[in-house]
Amino acid sequence: MKTNPISPTIPLDQDGIHHGFLRLPYSRDDSAWGSIMIPLTVIKNGDGPTALLTGANHGDEYEGPVALQELTVTLKPEDITGRVIIVPAFNYPAFRAGLRTSPIDKGNMNRSFPGRPDGTPTEKIADYFQRTLLPMADIAVDFHSGGKTLDFVPFAAAHILDDKTLEAACFAAMAAFNAPYSVQLLEIDNVGMYDTAVEDMGKVLVSTELGGGGSATAKSIAIAKKGLRNVLIHAGILNGKMQIDPTVRLDMPDGDCFVFAQEDGLHEPMVDLGETVSEGDIVARIWPVDRTGLAPTELRAKRSGILISRHFPGMIKAGDSTAVVGAIVDEVP
Amino acid sequence: MKTNPISPTIPLDQDGIHHGFLRLPYSRDDSAWGSIMIPLTVIKNGDGPTALLTGANHGDEYEGPVALQELTVTLKPEDITGRVIIVPAFNYPAFRAGLRTSPIDKGNMNRSFPGRPDGTPTEKIADYFQRTLLPMADIAVDFHSGGKTLDFVPFAAAHILDDKTLEAACFAAMAAFNAPYSVQLLEIDNVGMYDTAVEDMGKVLVSTELGGGGSATAKSIAIAKKGLRNVLIHAGILNGKMQIDPTVRLDMPDGDCFVFAQEDGLHEPMVDLGETVSEGDIVARIWPVDRTGLAPTELRAKRSGILISRHFPGMIKAGDSTAVVGAIVDEVP
Amino acid sequence: MKTNPISPTIPLDQDGIHHGFLRLPYSRDDSAWGSIMIPLTVIKNGDGPTALLTGANHGDEYEGPVALQELTVTLKPEDITGRVIIVPAFNYPAFRAGLRTSPIDKGNMNRSFPGRPDGTPTEKIADYFQRTLLPMADIAVDFHSGGKTLDFVPFAAAHILDDKTLEAACFAAMAAFNAPYSVQLLEIDNVGMYDTAVEDMGKVLVSTELGGGGSATAKSIAIAKKGLRNVLIHAGILNGKMQIDPTVRLDMPDGDCFVFAQEDGLHEPMVDLGETVSEGDIVARIWPVDRTGLAPTELRAKRSGILISRHFPGMIKAGDSTAVVGAIVDEVP
Amino acid sequence: MKTNPISPTIPLDQDGIHHGFLRLPYSRDDSAWGSIMIPLTVIKNGDGPTALLTGANHGDEYEGPVALQELTVTLKPEDITGRVIIVPAFNYPAFRAGLRTSPIDKGNMNRSFPGRPDGTPTEKIADYFQRTLLPMADIAVDFHSGGKTLDFVPFAAAHILDDKTLEAACFAAMAAFNAPYSVQLLEIDNVGMYDTAVEDMGKVLVSTELGGGGSATAKSIAIAKKGLRNVLIHAGILNGKMQIDPTVRLDMPDGDCFVFAQEDGLHEPMVDLGETVSEGDIVARIWPVDRTGLAPTELRAKRSGILISRHFPGMIKAGDSTAVVGAIVDEVP
Amino acid sequence: MKTNPISPTIPLDQDGIHHGFLRLPYSRDDSAWGSIMIPLTVIKNGDGPTALLTGANHGDEYEGPVALQELTVTLKPEDITGRVIIVPAFNYPAFRAGLRTSPIDKGNMNRSFPGRPDGTPTEKIADYFQRTLLPMADIAVDFHSGGKTLDFVPFAAAHILDDKTLEAACFAAMAAFNAPYSVQLLEIDNVGMYDTAVEDMGKVLVSTELGGGGSATAKSIAIAKKGLRNVLIHAGILNGKMQIDPTVRLDMPDGDCFVFAQEDGLHEPMVDLGETVSEGDIVARIWPVDRTGLAPTELRAKRSGILISRHFPGMIKAGDSTAVVGAIVDEVP
Amino acid sequence: MKTNPISPTIPLDQDGIHHGFLRLPYSRDDSAWGSIMIPLTVIKNGDGPTALLTGANHGDEYEGPVALQELTVTLKPEDITGRVIIVPAFNYPAFRAGLRTSPIDKGNMNRSFPGRPDGTPTEKIADYFQRTLLPMADIAVDFHSGGKTLDFVPFAAAHILDDKTLEAACFAAMAAFNAPYSVQLLEIDNVGMYDTAVEDMGKVLVSTELGGGGSATAKSIAIAKKGLRNVLIHAGILNGKMQIDPTVRLDMPDGDCFVFAQEDGLHEPMVDLGETVSEGDIVARIWPVDRTGLAPTELRAKRSGILISRHFPGMIKAGDSTAVVGAIVDEVP
Repeated sequence: MKTNPISPTIPLDQDGIHHGFLRLPYSRDDSAWGSIMIPLTVIKNGDGPTALLTGANHGDEYEGPVALQELTVTLKPEDITGRVIIVPAFNYPAFRAGLRTSPIDKGNMNRSFPGRPDGTPTEKIADYFQRTLLPMADIAVDFHSGGKTLDFVPFAAAHILDDKTLEAACFAAMAAFNAPYSVQLLEIDNVGMYDTAVEDMGKVLVSTELGGGGSATAKSIAIAKKGLRNVLIHAGILNGKMQIDPTVRLDMPDGDCFVFAQEDGLHEPMVDLGETVSEGDIVARIWPVDRTGLAPTELRAKRSGILISRHFPGMIKAGDSTAVVGAIVDEVP
Repeated sequence: MKTNPISPTIPLDQDGIHHGFLRLPYSRDDSAWGSIMIPLTVIKNGDGPTALLTGANHGDEYEGPVALQELTVTLKPEDITGRVIIVPAFNYPAFRAGLRTSPIDKGNMNRSFPGRPDGTPTEKIADYFQRTLLPMADIAVDFHSGGKTLDFVPFAAAHILDDKTLEAACFAAMAAFNAPYSVQLLEIDNVGMYDTAVEDMGKVLVSTELGGGGSATAKSIAIAKKGLRNVLIHAGILNGKMQIDPTVRLDMPDGDCFVFAQEDGLHEPMVDLGETVSEGDIVARIWPVDRTGLAPTELRAKRSGILISRHFPGMIKAGDSTAVVGAIVDEVP
Repeated sequence: MKTNPISPTIPLDQDGIHHGFLRLPYSRDDSAWGSIMIPLTVIKNGDGPTALLTGANHGDEYEGPVALQELTVTLKPEDITGRVIIVPAFNYPAFRAGLRTSPIDKGNMNRSFPGRPDGTPTEKIADYFQRTLLPMADIAVDFHSGGKTLDFVPFAAAHILDDKTLEAACFAAMAAFNAPYSVQLLEIDNVGMYDTAVEDMGKVLVSTELGGGGSATAKSIAIAKKGLRNVLIHAGILNGKMQIDPTVRLDMPDGDCFVFAQEDGLHEPMVDLGETVSEGDIVARIWPVDRTGLAPTELRAKRSGILISRHFPGMIKAGDSTAVVGAIVDEVP
Repeated sequence: MKTNPISPTIPLDQDGIHHGFLRLPYSRDDSAWGSIMIPLTVIKNGDGPTALLTGANHGDEYEGPVALQELTVTLKPEDITGRVIIVPAFNYPAFRAGLRTSPIDKGNMNRSFPGRPDGTPTEKIADYFQRTLLPMADIAVDFHSGGKTLDFVPFAAAHILDDKTLEAACFAAMAAFNAPYSVQLLEIDNVGMYDTAVEDMGKVLVSTELGGGGSATAKSIAIAKKGLRNVLIHAGILNGKMQIDPTVRLDMPDGDCFVFAQEDGLHEPMVDLGETVSEGDIVARIWPVDRTGLAPTELRAKRSGILISRHFPGMIKAGDSTAVVGAIVDEVP
Repeated sequence: MKTNPISPTIPLDQDGIHHGFLRLPYSRDDSAWGSIMIPLTVIKNGDGPTALLTGANHGDEYEGPVALQELTVTLKPEDITGRVIIVPAFNYPAFRAGLRTSPIDKGNMNRSFPGRPDGTPTEKIADYFQRTLLPMADIAVDFHSGGKTLDFVPFAAAHILDDKTLEAACFAAMAAFNAPYSVQLLEIDNVGMYDTAVEDMGKVLVSTELGGGGSATAKSIAIAKKGLRNVLIHAGILNGKMQIDPTVRLDMPDGDCFVFAQEDGLHEPMVDLGETVSEGDIVARIWPVDRTGLAPTELRAKRSGILISRHFPGMIKAGDSTAVVGAIVDEVP
Repeated sequence: MKTNPISPTIPLDQDGIHHGFLRLPYSRDDSAWGSIMIPLTVIKNGDGPTALLTGANHGDEYEGPVALQELTVTLKPEDITGRVIIVPAFNYPAFRAGLRTSPIDKGNMNRSFPGRPDGTPTEKIADYFQRTLLPMADIAVDFHSGGKTLDFVPFAAAHILDDKTLEAACFAAMAAFNAPYSVQLLEIDNVGMYDTAVEDMGKVLVSTELGGGGSATAKSIAIAKKGLRNVLIHAGILNGKMQIDPTVRLDMPDGDCFVFAQEDGLHEPMVDLGETVSEGDIVARIWPVDRTGLAPTELRAKRSGILISRHFPGMIKAGDSTAVVGAIVDEVP
């Protein structure tokens, strides 16, 4: 296997706090000898577990980058035992462009693993995580939200895994993150996901969906900050006491959770996030955009539960996921 | 003055309900003999006042278009006395593109009045309203929201005017609209606004800001629908009883309401819409996007009140309005 | 009035043949001290009338440019008495881009007259024709076709004018051009047209529509070449005998000639150019593009006659002229 | 081999008529959980052969989509024995964009076979046909025309194959299609073609070139409709009697059929489609676009025959196929 | 005349040093309530003359912005008597885009005076200088270079003016700037220039051309820094002794100085900047880009002198200024 | 291995001089049956060595294309013994676009070897050189410069190779080229380079960096022309005597030669090309672009030597190579 061209400008294994970059050489029309400079902070104090913390896996999701930027300023080496590696903008070109995928190669970071050292920039970043950073980690937190085109009730998630010991560790970490909602996911198609890369290496992963619309609120960012702190305590890296609030546990058992649009139009949501839905309820309507006086198309829920995700923009396209209805497992007070 | 090239494909003054278009000839590279077809519904029953109802004055604001599309389907001639002219997408090219301004000429409809019959498409539409549709109207409702880049607490608004009789009529119509918030506005620079065109003709205007982010919710759309119905009843066009809920009356007395960013970066809101703010509070922080370990810039409120508007996207640019703090006048139960 | 910045690189009034350019200074991002170089040929021999011959008034219409390029190579000073000014690409930036309008300023040359010496490049070219070239001319031929989005039966056209002497001269020149069809036009909105500029100066104008689709055929180019030669003979500039073939004279009496689309879709023409149409016939159908199993919309002729123009591309947009039905005046054998 | 992510929204094997979509999940910047919805109709009645009918293999070719859309409306289950699978827009993203290739991945569908289930959208569609739809078929009709940049005399085509039994079946189906011209093709480079995929599976294929220029005429669409009906009768699926008109059989024996441009310029065709050409004849000329007074470059036929294809746009580029001269085999009355 | 919407965020008339912005409200699709923030420094100490210093009048010219940024850091109030107003990026949107003109409105700042308060952003900036900043100034320095498409020998320039007293003051300031070359310019078309606006108000102006190619060198920046310091001393604002080196005085007497290309191609300069040229010398050749084996076009000097400007990019277009030959007036040791 | 679709329009092995093209079929939206026509000249006279001469490996580097275009006009078969194959624009699509990489596929020719016959156009060209042209050659000259984003002191280069016999031959050819500087390079990552392809086949290679900025000067072109002539004489193909001037031999021993920017900003070079630098010297500064009054970031040399390369544009981005300091080996008088 070829050498990955990415090199860190700071040491990854020295005590103290270092701020720098992952430098990825990138020759292009507007810079023959240019590079992509992915911001990176490494905080280390003695021996202990390593947490790998990432935001902007998709470049238009903001709770992670904000909470992680703050962590690079507030977390001190003396506060921890072990190591924290912080990459606030995993897919940095996508983050700078405010887009889900990289504007360079259209790469969706969460479908690019295990990556390639001689591939596109997105694939090179994936390969560097796969072969260099992930092997150093014991636990990983990867922040997601809905981005510009989806919105979610705020939840942390863990996957149902064949390795039940690892699954239990992941569920415990999700519980530690303690978002208002906690979702157990059975991925049907997990090829190329960062999640899969982490779990296949036997590491603990917490991922999240904390909001969406290409924005963040004081409230959603507070969830991210609390979750980060809790997970670092849970992992034995940070001292302190976790703050634990009630959470609702949800399940997405099958494809009937999803409601897809079959035409383009003006999107009228009929139910808001977190509201209760019964099978057969109209969750959204689609109005024509080019004429008046025509009845809208009605989209109905195929199961009962609560609305956990919705299409965000005012316009909708045929094939878009319009609504997702999740099933309540229980409420943890 | 030249003739405006726009022609309606339906009669504007016949009893009954007609659905059609305002046809604006528009020769261009991809259609030598093409036109812009702006959807239009006219509902008329006998003699009575005329309401002119418009959405998508800015093309990425959605409560108006949804509520008005529904009205073209649900309102029957026999329900009314007078006339209702409905244009769900005022700046139709902008609406189809999902943009604030027209992709053809970058025209901001709300800065294009009184328009020109031989100007750009946006100016031609403005001129058609100025010289043809507005003179037919007694009352106008123009829907706004924050669009893709701003978010608002939901309010109806009326302007402080020199003509106190008209002002009173406008305030009464705003009260009839009965959004959760009601805002009295003193426009400092009202040149080119549709509002000014309406008011200068001595007609009653209600405008709104009902949400934002380039999206709408079941809740914000319900405000629009209730407001529309109430205003039509208030105007004597529709029979029925208005639904009146509590509203908070707000004022934006001066420039200290506005907090502007002076640098580009990652936007961290510290207060959410509708929350109380004291002078000197940090309302937002701006983090660097290209490196870690640097403290954020803090933006502070210059007055006390509640947060009525905020920058929406996760990224912010120098010069953007980050937050607006409004003053509470009173609460109407 | 300001001086027009355009200057010819060749003399306009010397005997012989000169090939050069109209140089229009044009400072821009990719050339700080650049110019637009509009190709120009002037052929002169002694005293006599001046013909001003232009192609690519719209930049995607090709019979004119081809026939005029050939004329710059084949016409010799000794063949003529008087002067021939040839500008094969009137809106040169549009011609180079293969577009109806200028890619620089979106200028439609045929809606830019009388132009402005300090306006956009399109307006500067119009002003140069208005104030410099047109005053030199006795007769003008301006070639049009349907461009990329329309197709026509091949015709020469002349306008119905208030000045009946000029009208007769124009009709005589149209007859000399002798295209397969000859159309008398009553322009309803002639503001900004080159035609109007020519006629308002009391000069004779022949314009044409010789085909379309952004292409030309051996057949349509032959019509242009024959027409050019005939008109130069008719004007007393070229010696020789005109070639006169049968022509059908057509009229477009009113707005009922036009059939407009009211929706976007897949365009199915039901009648071909030159075919006979009766009032009420389906001239085209529009199929949905996003689903199967739905009936098409039918567009019907509002008058009887022959199909003289049609929308060309396979896709159609709401507001596009789909078909034009002309009335046969008579056939000239 | 991985599972193809495309799923039909309707059953492929139930009696009756079903209209729906092939849904291809496609996550992208403007829809995180979006899909491509390819329209699909399946009509089935009992046991019998299956015909797979496709249009818009290249997205700017229109006879196929129009004729197939009509078939989804007019063909009834009771009219047939067997099954008809109709996909009017094979490369649906290209069709919606009016482009030869997909705007998403630049994929040329006819060079993308056998495709890949984890490739680009174009490759996923190809793989779905290769592994799911084609195995269901006995006969396939794939509609082509010249698209925006070529024009053809209308012909049906069949390939010269090593498997002479299959070749005979294909020639018989071409004869049943009965276009004005019928062409036997020896593909030199058939890698990646849909045709090859069909034939390699031992299925009968008819393909066509029915016109071009990114348009269609009433005449060319009628050829498509008649051909479709004839082929369904020929295949034993539809009852009825084929309509058979005279056809001219053509051959394209070698590379001398093609005339390529070696420079950019203004394109003057000297021969029209269907006209007779002798070796050495000038088939086209290329004029300079940036100056007058220069002789054109002449392009000459390298063999005698008739002109069966030409470059369509008014502008031509070095390397473009300017003209194709085919050899007449015989005329079938 | 309307009020200009630009407001400074710092005082313009207080002693001390203030760094801030000219804030220009600019509502647009990606920021409904956004602004353009033009960086600004004002340094003041007591009474005395005011110098107005500007860079990036054209946004791709860099000596000015660099030298002025340094001045905002190194110049102290206590060093001066009077006031220095520094705007390193006059056309700030153009500067941020690295383009000659504004990407917002294509505005060329040096052709936009006197501007308009309700015009495009470029016109608003011009109007603010015209009516607010320029009236405060006694002397102005406006930095230019060749930008991305031209290169110059480094010179300061002053105009030949009708007001000979002002002309003398300008020539004295140019001499104080003391670039390696000093050029006296007779502007033929000075409409819209900032220079004209300054001079028409009776203020002293020095402008420059210090290099080009969209780059700067240590050497060219040193010329800018020395010139700035000298001019501030000359104006009586800064204490100290001017550094005066030899300069060559040049003249550009007429249009024969300019050599224009008449065709597109690959640009071969045959003479370098500052070299001596005789009338009839080949100054550049243009090679075809699309074929080999053809002789180049030769461009010859129309007068003798030295090469003071050349086309910079490797490719050239018809109409580009290829070379400018200046006449040596004398050399000032 | 598949057949490469490229075919030459001229013979590669006949005596005399032939000008033509490498024709690469390229079907695309704007030409269904189009091709890329890469200009080519082959000059041959009897038996002898073959030189393969290439320019525009990167499309924005101009000394090579100019010198090679001249060679196609000036070199006569009777002047040589052997064969000279001249391709002035190796990556022809990039050259026509004035870009480093191909606008079609973003291919960097110098990272595309050995190419693929069924790959992108850039890969197809690489494969054609790899398998057809390079095997014919004994010596190759490949011209480079800095392109639009870098600038270099003019040098010829040869690689340090494992095969010391070949290395000596390459160093001898570099000495024959005799640029003002001669650089010995140890490539750390030579994967995909044309250089590697040539050397791995055991052929002699000279490459160059002769300037940059997307421009060329009379001086830098003269270096290219002299170098070409010298190498052809050195190779025994051309008769004559080499012109040998002094050269400075340089080495780039390790990564400390490179100085990278870590932030975006306005670029101030503090040292010019060819100047001496000591370890710790400031070679460049980066100023903020969005505010005044802030100190610049200083970039310092990590070793002593002379400045052999610099970032060219006035703006710089984080990750760009700002400066390269080379070590002087010796000066050859």
